[in-house]
Amino acid sequence: MRQMGLGVSAIGMGYHIAAWRHPDASPGGNMELSHAVRSIQAAERGLFDMYFLADGVGIRMYDEPPGALSRSSKNVQFEPLTLLSALAMVTTRIGLIATASTTWNEPYHIARKFASLDHISGGRAGWNVVTSVTAQEARNFGHEAAPDYADRYDRAAEFLDVVRGLWGSWEDDAFLRDKASGINFDPAKLHVLNHKGRHFTVAGPLNVARTPQGAPVIVQAGASDQGREMAAASADVVYAAAQTLEEARAYYADVKGRMAKYGRRPDSLKIMPGLMAIPGRTRQEAHDRYEILQELIHPIVGLSAIAGSLGDLSAHPLDGPVPEPVNPRMLSRAKILLDMARRDDLTIRQLYLAIAGGNGHRTVIGTPADIADAMEEWFTGGGADGFNILPPWLPGGLEEVVDQVVPELQRRGLFRTAYEGRTLRDLLGADPAPNRHVTARAAAE
Amino acid sequence: MRQMGLGVSAIGMGYHIAAWRHPDASPGGNMELSHAVRSIQAAERGLFDMYFLADGVGIRMYDEPPGALSRSSKNVQFEPLTLLSALAMVTTRIGLIATASTTWNEPYHIARKFASLDHISGGRAGWNVVTSVTAQEARNFGHEAAPDYADRYDRAAEFLDVVRGLWGSWEDDAFLRDKASGINFDPAKLHVLNHKGRHFTVAGPLNVARTPQGAPVIVQAGASDQGREMAAASADVVYAAAQTLEEARAYYADVKGRMAKYGRRPDSLKIMPGLMAIPGRTRQEAHDRYEILQELIHPIVGLSAIAGSLGDLSAHPLDGPVPEPVNPRMLSRAKILLDMARRDDLTIRQLYLAIAGGNGHRTVIGTPADIADAMEEWFTGGGADGFNILPPWLPGGLEEVVDQVVPELQRRGLFRTAYEGRTLRDLLGADPAPNRHVTARAAAE
Repeated sequence: MRQMGLGVSAIGMGYHIAAWRHPDASPGGNMELSHAVRSIQAAERGLFDMYFLADGVGIRMYDEPPGALSRSSKNVQFEPLTLLSALAMVTTRIGLIATASTTWNEPYHIARKFASLDHISGGRAGWNVVTSVTAQEARNFGHEAAPDYADRYDRAAEFLDVVRGLWGSWEDDAFLRDKASGINFDPAKLHVLNHKGRHFTVAGPLNVARTPQGAPVIVQAGASDQGREMAAASADVVYAAAQTLEEARAYYADVKGRMAKYGRRPDSLKIMPGLMAIPGRTRQEAHDRYEILQELIHPIVGLSAIAGSLGDLSAHPLDGPVPEPVNPRMLSRAKILLDMARRDDLTIRQLYLAIAGGNGHRTVIGTPADIADAMEEWFTGGGADGFNILPPWLPGGLEEVVDQVVPELQRRGLFRTAYEGRTLRDLLGADPAPNRHVTARAAAE
Repeated sequence: MRQMGLGVSAIGMGYHIAAWRHPDASPGGNMELSHAVRSIQAAERGLFDMYFLADGVGIRMYDEPPGALSRSSKNVQFEPLTLLSALAMVTTRIGLIATASTTWNEPYHIARKFASLDHISGGRAGWNVVTSVTAQEARNFGHEAAPDYADRYDRAAEFLDVVRGLWGSWEDDAFLRDKASGINFDPAKLHVLNHKGRHFTVAGPLNVARTPQGAPVIVQAGASDQGREMAAASADVVYAAAQTLEEARAYYADVKGRMAKYGRRPDSLKIMPGLMAIPGRTRQEAHDRYEILQELIHPIVGLSAIAGSLGDLSAHPLDGPVPEPVNPRMLSRAKILLDMARRDDLTIRQLYLAIAGGNGHRTVIGTPADIADAMEEWFTGGGADGFNILPPWLPGGLEEVVDQVVPELQRRGLFRTAYEGRTLRDLLGADPAPNRHVTARAAAE
């Protein structure tokens, strides 16, 4: 029987914008190692596939309206690759996914660090490939603004290609390490990339051996057209966003439909929409739990949650309608928010309350059975291969899902009852990662 | 009583070029986590100040003469920042020093990763600041060769300045995290760098909180004139290289003498020359142990050890004199080797055998008392504040120093018998790391 995959998005304090104010939260948890350890160990106890860390190379929100930033916990965090390397030592099976930007990095560094994490973790590393769009990030790297969409994606595609090439620098059996003869490796099994492209010129080889997974798992968000194409071509997991089953189905069918031309079987790509799940023993208890956080949203922080896409709406009445944005940023996200507001005729306050938790992702509040129903519907209905769980706060919001929802999914046969396989790639049922240099040689023979 | 500091250089298989062939070595240890864990735990058992990882952003040797590379283990390794983040979880007190290049990195990434490691390790991170000189590294970043010396050092100085500025983005007490009022941090204690210089334009702020040490420890090698100046201005530790006490004294006096103009007290910089120490119960046993490794050096590998500085000498008789180099690379190192060869009238074979272990660093082979004598002489004689131990192979070569030499140093009162203080900065007796933004404000008031 087909079973779903589960990831958890676990950066900082949790997904809800007021998470740090939750009565049971450690308010400085975004810089406490013990907080991250407790979170990942909960996810591993729940047999999750992946522990997923978002990232940005700069402060990830604007101080808009003024005062929002100092009321938010989206200011400081551990750097994901260092944190996951540490967390690899207190876990044994869960996948470790770090986000890293293709816009403000060099492929050699990224190839190295993920390869190193894959070795450290015994084959559990994954890279969430993103481009960086914000001006705050650009200004940390000598630019006033991010490159435009087409250029970012063109660079991202070449970046990923170079990284994969570097990951094939050494064949699996390149290292003989024969003490008697003194031969350390077989030179015929070392491949120098010598990449020359539009964005990068990278000689190689990588100074890290072929990794336990062959290559770390590739995760993408892939919302836009080029993003979807890249996901279909290269990703093992897509972290999707949809509010309704219809949207999820359309996205699922579109991305899976693009895979054939890359010679890929649809099953080898897991589409996992974000899902904020808030369980309670009764529906009332679940809603009461959620209200604890909703009531802690300062209006300035609420407005900031939509300002990133729709601009600063603080001049408009909070309880009036959502105006058409003047200078919308992040177009695909602005459209999601406006669609929500128009569909349900939301005021500005209602809109920010609606997205304050799931940030535009689907939110399900109810009994464990309600949540399992919601997941099963999408999983069996062509909308998802699994879910990236967005705990409203950490670690408690995750522990509730692990302790209440996971057992319900297991009872239904929808989720594993023990870890299987050796690597994250095994766990996901992803394609193996052939070494392109070996493939090319085989084709030539 | 003044006591010495001890570090260990622990990348890969160990310092001797035939280390991977040692009968007791795990020949694939350079990519085995257990090998690194055993090494660092030995160093911590020995109360060492620092576990030090060299690095290069590329393969770190030329295949010169041809066949040398495939007979060497200097091919693959863990990436230092990921490895040290993992090792932070299996140690509690030892300092964690990663090398990172200022030539092929961006300061924002470096500031973030070291700050993150400092948080993960509870204040034990250090950065060995280097420039990258090899063409192999340049070619992984779109260049045919490294920038020239002056440009590399100019960039390095600005790079370090930017990183330090970013480390001061948040004051120690910036985060209020007051759940009741909803104020997460005090905006007056957030400092935006807005650096604009010749090499970098970096806005900041850093998205990592002020670290447990204020700022990670700064380590430098500082051999050249600009390197010495930078060390005097900015370093907490210098990893020096000298063969004789006279050389060590001259270097020590020179660097410490440059500190006053930066308002620094000489004691706040620890000068720690590299030292390959091979102990044995008797001198004969120590020499026999060393010979095990020396006999495992294939002549091609021996020649490669000098080719990096003096060029390929394989056309000359191994047992003839060392010729004047035609195109010497890495001038400061070439000079060290030629001085050695001329001083002791060495043949090519004798020269590579002489440096195959310590790679130009001082090598002492003898009883624990011999080694302690050699260390004490430099330590009390104005040549060193401590030593960076270069184990010929890992982990055994380090374990022998910990078990035999450390107790002898302790008996003499020259080395600690327990860890003290909280952070690496405490352990070294380094200066505190004032936040420049706070200092500037205080000066203005």
